[in-house]
Amino acid sequence: MSDKPVSDHRASDISRRRLIGTAGAAGAAGLVLGATGGATVYAAAGPGAAPDGKALTSVGSTAVPFHGAHQAGITTPLQARGHLVAFDLAPGAGRKEAAALLRRWSEAARRMTAGRPPADAGGDTGVALDAGPSSLTVTFGFGRTFFGRTGLDARRPAALDPLPDFSSDHLDPRRSDGDLWVQIGADDALVAFHALRAIQKEAGEAARVRWQMNGFNRSPGATAHPMTTRNLMGQIDGTGNPKPSESDFDRRVFVPADGGAEGPEWMAGGSYAVVRRIRMLLDDWEKLARGDQEKVIGRRKSDGAPLTGGTETTELDLDKAGPDGKPVIPANAHARISAPEQNGGAAMLRRPFSYHDGIGADGTPDAGLLFICWQADPLRGFVPVQRKLDRGDALSPFVRHEASGLFAVPGGARDGEYVGQRLLEG
Amino acid sequence: MSDKPVSDHRASDISRRRLIGTAGAAGAAGLVLGATGGATVYAAAGPGAAPDGKALTSVGSTAVPFHGAHQAGITTPLQARGHLVAFDLAPGAGRKEAAALLRRWSEAARRMTAGRPPADAGGDTGVALDAGPSSLTVTFGFGRTFFGRTGLDARRPAALDPLPDFSSDHLDPRRSDGDLWVQIGADDALVAFHALRAIQKEAGEAARVRWQMNGFNRSPGATAHPMTTRNLMGQIDGTGNPKPSESDFDRRVFVPADGGAEGPEWMAGGSYAVVRRIRMLLDDWEKLARGDQEKVIGRRKSDGAPLTGGTETTELDLDKAGPDGKPVIPANAHARISAPEQNGGAAMLRRPFSYHDGIGADGTPDAGLLFICWQADPLRGFVPVQRKLDRGDALSPFVRHEASGLFAVPGGARDGEYVGQRLLEG
Ligand code: HEM
Ligand code: HEM
Repeated sequence: MSDKPVSDHRASDISRRRLIGTAGAAGAAGLVLGATGGATVYAAAGPGAAPDGKALTSVGSTAVPFHGAHQAGITTPLQARGHLVAFDLAPGAGRKEAAALLRRWSEAARRMTAGRPPADAGGDTGVALDAGPSSLTVTFGFGRTFFGRTGLDARRPAALDPLPDFSSDHLDPRRSDGDLWVQIGADDALVAFHALRAIQKEAGEAARVRWQMNGFNRSPGATAHPMTTRNLMGQIDGTGNPKPSESDFDRRVFVPADGGAEGPEWMAGGSYAVVRRIRMLLDDWEKLARGDQEKVIGRRKSDGAPLTGGTETTELDLDKAGPDGKPVIPANAHARISAPEQNGGAAMLRRPFSYHDGIGADGTPDAGLLFICWQADPLRGFVPVQRKLDRGDALSPFVRHEASGLFAVPGGARDGEYVGQRLLEG
Repeated sequence: MSDKPVSDHRASDISRRRLIGTAGAAGAAGLVLGATGGATVYAAAGPGAAPDGKALTSVGSTAVPFHGAHQAGITTPLQARGHLVAFDLAPGAGRKEAAALLRRWSEAARRMTAGRPPADAGGDTGVALDAGPSSLTVTFGFGRTFFGRTGLDARRPAALDPLPDFSSDHLDPRRSDGDLWVQIGADDALVAFHALRAIQKEAGEAARVRWQMNGFNRSPGATAHPMTTRNLMGQIDGTGNPKPSESDFDRRVFVPADGGAEGPEWMAGGSYAVVRRIRMLLDDWEKLARGDQEKVIGRRKSDGAPLTGGTETTELDLDKAGPDGKPVIPANAHARISAPEQNGGAAMLRRPFSYHDGIGADGTPDAGLLFICWQADPLRGFVPVQRKLDRGDALSPFVRHEASGLFAVPGGARDGEYVGQRLLEG
């Protein structure tokens, strides 16, 4: 089954987008314009019946399979609502408790992503009732500290070594790191909240919430532009992402099936997530004229096309000079210095949520990007690019990195398996 | 043009719901099963063309007219995303500056609700680009303190007298009240955020943000149950609301066209909004067994039907006793003691957003209801009901009122008029 996002074509409406996903999953090659992470549509056109017999429309009835080579929530199309939550193992909890926890979590996720309550026994909050799975995904990751607490130091991937410090960091340790990390995404805010509470409840005595953040993207059907989203600076965001159609997509994003050089073996099919809460200094940003904002990125705001012309998908012409002899895309433009060609091929799959937590203590909007990027190895993805950006990104004066995390996200669970089983029982 | 919500029928999918609204607006009586606040659909089935020529799907392309007898955002179907923001006039700003501000705000709202940028001159953030209006509404109200600051005390409605204290109040004054109040709702989070920033920008030097809150409801299409939403306790919420089909709906919700006894005249067609940020003590609530949760409200969680049987729309049988001789719907059940029959006919239109701001300082979820209720007179709506609830609501141990506001929301602006003009220039 294909497990790629619809990031390389434009579907002109959401139900067509979802339908294409189904067709793709069913293997009807002629229709595979771009698959949607293997989404299943219970009822694509108009109301239909979900497993519980309730009539649903296509947004609610779309389900993203829990099982697969990779965990869901990495190449799944951006969802309208997201929750990030990090946990620390409780004092006294070790490998055994962690294994039981991952087993409970996987089971709850498997059920909820199919539109069912998290457990057979009662006690469900009911918050998701009436809606279908709404493209719910629940993705689990391990932080560096998890391995010491569970006596698994020997299996800790080198890729989890702490990120270097960057000069622009203003990191709040209380909202950074964590033994365990869960990313929840859904196209309905109540479905997402329901999953968050269920995951918290299943943590039981084994783990305690360390930090928790909320985010959002466009609602399905609000735009005919499903390929990329806009961020709160108003830019189209996601254009330069690696495309599933590119031959090196898997190699860049996922640890190879045999563990590969990146290893360890239990990470086969997995990926490393770098999570940064990046505040946008919107009061300052919005004072810039649109032309100056566009020079900061190197792309037009209206349609995301490079300042050197064309459409959103046209390559940047980094050598082109303007009448004044200066490069049209400035030397410090964000899209120039973050591009793989400028970073020895370093690339990552950015899959963010925007966040907005009202007004901050300083009176400015507490809003920005829950930047999440996925790569087979952070040292060939986030790290070199952020190092470069840190030295000379025109965007830097308008953003502030306020929290950071790095998590090893194992491959998808096979039928009957739980996420992380190969680590915890291997 | 009809200006009623779809709260008295079940549309089985969102585009049918929207379509019915359009038909209603066009006056095709046979199709008026329930109008949607006069929503206009640029393209109901599949992609179409919005005013800017972009293809849009039905969620994005739905527009709620700004002009009308009443402001939009009162009987408009619940939107997926909401922002509440209160402003205080800046020191030195008086009636003249307030009139200019309401003129600017109305113009920005009129444009944005039609899917256009807030002003012709540049400087738009671009955050809403690619999406249509997405059912955006922007609703303006005046707080009690507005009238003293603008020398308009003589026109201050008696209905704005401070709400009484309630024993369960834990109100934070920094997040309560305000000279001016703006409610923003949209089915897309970026469209809503865009409108919030535009409204803040247009405030210019005339007014400063006092507080700001974010909320949400179901996404369009996530459920086939458009009549009511669920709240974060998992209950169907909105069932007992006055129905537009009832003969006293207008009288209960809106100040009469001639000002009526409620007066003053400038409030003709207006309504009073009571806004309460009500924290839910979810860690405690979720420990209750489902049966006990249902007794707290008097309705079933699964489908909202009364514990005395039937379906969601069946009347509560308040006299029915169980085998133990006790009333099936307990004496302190929330739906019993808040019902109009128990409160001398007092009724209000509840139109809330849920909120979730992560984890609070006390480690429990900072989540609950942005309770907003609309009535022609708070003394015949919110006040008597909340007095009763305050004395004996079974829900009280699970909620905490953390902020409060009361605002006079004038009638809708006529073409060429701005909201509040009859107050400020009358
Ligand atoms: C709030 C912070 C940020 C904003 C608003 C932002 C915005 C953008 C925008 C508008 C683009 C151009 C469109 C696109 O290709 O998506 C872009 C490209 C990109 N950004 Fe960022 N970005 C931010 C932070 C970062 C960070 C922290 C990294 C990694 C360290 C990063 C890496 C990239 C990469 C790799 C590209 C694609 C370049 C290419 O190959 O064309 N960005 N970003
Ligand atoms: C977080 C706080 C609250 C929650 C969770 C809540 C929940 C509910 C629920 C589940 C119902 C039954 C379904 C329905 O008719 O909508 C209901 C009914 C009602 N509630 Fe609340 N409520 C809250 C606060 C309030 C407040 C503060 C008031 C007014 C002072 C209020 C007034 C009403 C009214 C008038 C009804 C309808 C009763 C009827 O006529 O059947 N509620 N509420």
